Amino acid sequence: ATERPEALLLVMPTDHAIPDVDAFRAAVAAGVPRAVAGQIVTFGVRPDRPETGYGWIEVRGAPVDGVAQRVERFVEKPELARAEAMLAEGRYLWNAGIFLVSAKTLVAAVTAHAPDLIEPVGEAVAEARGDLDFLRLSEGPWSGVRDISIDFAVMEKAANIEVIPLGTAWSDLGDWNAVWRENGGGIVTQGAVTAIDCEGSLLRSEVGGQHVVGIGLQDLVVVAMPDAVLVADRARSQDVKTAVAQLKAKAVRQAEVFPRDHRPWGWFETLALADRFQVKRIVVKPGAALSLQSHVHRAEHWIVVSGTAQVTVGEDVKLLTENQSVYVPLGAVHRLANPGKVPVVLIEVQTGAYLGEDDIIRYEDIYARGDEQGPKR
Amino acid sequence: ATERPEALLLVMPTDHAIPDVDAFRAAVAAGVPRAVAGQIVTFGVRPDRPETGYGWIEVRGAPVDGVAQRVERFVEKPELARAEAMLAEGRYLWNAGIFLVSAKTLVAAVTAHAPDLIEPVGEAVAEARGDLDFLRLSEGPWSGVRDISIDFAVMEKAANIEVIPLGTAWSDLGDWNAVWRENGGGIVTQGAVTAIDCEGSLLRSEVGGQHVVGIGLQDLVVVAMPDAVLVADRARSQDVKTAVAQLKAKAVRQAEVFPRDHRPWGWFETLALADRFQVKRIVVKPGAALSLQSHVHRAEHWIVVSGTAQVTVGEDVKLLTENQSVYVPLGAVHRLANPGKVPVVLIEVQTGAYLGEDDIIRYEDIYARGDEQGPKR
Repeated sequence: ATERPEALLLVMPTDHAIPDVDAFRAAVAAGVPRAVAGQIVTFGVRPDRPETGYGWIEVRGAPVDGVAQRVERFVEKPELARAEAMLAEGRYLWNAGIFLVSAKTLVAAVTAHAPDLIEPVGEAVAEARGDLDFLRLSEGPWSGVRDISIDFAVMEKAANIEVIPLGTAWSDLGDWNAVWRENGGGIVTQGAVTAIDCEGSLLRSEVGGQHVVGIGLQDLVVVAMPDAVLVADRARSQDVKTAVAQLKAKAVRQAEVFPRDHRPWGWFETLALADRFQVKRIVVKPGAALSLQSHVHRAEHWIVVSGTAQVTVGEDVKLLTENQSVYVPLGAVHRLANPGKVPVVLIEVQTGAYLGEDDIIRYEDIYARGDEQGPKR
Repeated sequence: ATERPEALLLVMPTDHAIPDVDAFRAAVAAGVPRAVAGQIVTFGVRPDRPETGYGWIEVRGAPVDGVAQRVERFVEKPELARAEAMLAEGRYLWNAGIFLVSAKTLVAAVTAHAPDLIEPVGEAVAEARGDLDFLRLSEGPWSGVRDISIDFAVMEKAANIEVIPLGTAWSDLGDWNAVWRENGGGIVTQGAVTAIDCEGSLLRSEVGGQHVVGIGLQDLVVVAMPDAVLVADRARSQDVKTAVAQLKAKAVRQAEVFPRDHRPWGWFETLALADRFQVKRIVVKPGAALSLQSHVHRAEHWIVVSGTAQVTVGEDVKLLTENQSVYVPLGAVHRLANPGKVPVVLIEVQTGAYLGEDDIIRYEDIYARGDEQGPKR
């Protein structure tokens, strides 16, 4: 914002389906001169049902594709009767959650409507550090920022806000019910699934080797993931958020930790965890390296499945290629690096009485993580 | 039967719950003189509901605990109206599927009512081989035997058949609905499960690290297993058999292969299977040994998690204990044995382009399996 205040930002949720990319580009292009002129440009979807789960936008006249109009009002998740009335009236659009704005307009809007956010956010950015493709905000100031959505903090208060109809099909894939609907309804399956006498249900297996069988199901969502199985009444899909909150309250690991853990150097996932051993798949990007580290409670065995790894154990540095393995004894200082041109895939078998990610002593890290707290590798 | 024709056989299903063992023993003891006298003795359960999923037994008078009575008739899985009538009449018992009979009485009954079974079964036994705790019937003759239950082949035709009331609570755990009922109904959970606004449902997670979440469920059975997730209307629990038949027709591996594979020397299970690698947990009993073998397509890494393994690779024989590992190159002749007093638990990582159980050349096997076909270790 300070370096290029005129720069335009296009902010887009990751879980929306917009099949007609050209129509979307046309709508954004129509917004560019308005954003340059200092407007906050939002994008609206013509409603085709009285959806109570979305935010609605009121405009003055009938919406016209490619034409920006002043937003009269935002209506958050309405009651059904209200939604039906708005659908019938024809002047309302769904809020797609997409907006186009210049950096200086956005900063001015936040300064006007939520001034307490400016200082800690500014500090978090000023103290941020680069980490490969990531920009990592500084945790201290960022954790002090009030938890509020930009819709409530700014959009619903700003006067210089306009909306342009998207002019194409759009779908919020924000819950499993929407995924079911967008796949045509009826019986929707993905992966290894057998559905017997089921109706109006979504069944997905996202685990290789775990077959999902549904018998006599009606209006359900069944999703089998590596670390969790969700079975929910389709009408209750939105309550997955409630479930996650309950899991967090019970300190269930799955609510906080993703099965596949991304790191600056690549990613890892747990394949099996049992008493006294854990098996992980580790993928290291070409040119990347894990920190020089040691463990107090566990020994590790590394078996290279593909690629070539450079392994340091104590004073010993060697190259391991497909089918080769190395043993890292408890307490040994070690490092794993990929000096090659293709990813290294390896199986790590940890053995020991305690196998938590926080059993790590880090000596040297090309990603400058030695000064951080918490579970990192 | 030929060596000890007077020997009594007590045949019991594995999936029945009989909490009062003394009462059960008393019922069996009451049957012994009857079985010695040449009767086929069955055991009956006093019905407490018009169950249509069971077989019923008609006796002449009111059943008395500990007293054997002539079976008038078997009624297989009746219609509801029939079941209600039988329940009201008081002369009927459920067939517990347990029976007590002498070897010679049973052979005589089969000879009289299903004579075509005698010859191939006799051959399968005559050609059987011992295999630790197992007696392995000879596959050739056994596979030629007609597939029929003993109830249909013999019991329902024999005249010398009597029934004794069990005189205790009894439950057939043959389907998940019964497991739900036996656990008191309502919300029944086992393992890592979170049930939100659910009613009349059984939710089980049998996979370490996979949390089952149910939201707004009514009268469902949800069972997450390592290789399959079952979600079924509770009233359709019996249809799991139909599902298995469908899976077999689709050649789904899970319908034929159990995740945990028992062998004379112990057991193994697949923890992870992906392109070019497979991770297994292998448990070897004290004193047991796998065959001397080699593979054409894969290399293996063995990592001992607990116990002490004796490992042969080529000419090399050594002992490996906790945290130690060994590499078995592609083509190397190798053997794994447990010379110790506690089980050996090890993690095997296989790498290679083909990882099927049938990539095995067996040189020597204390369980005499060298001459058999098919996937064995």
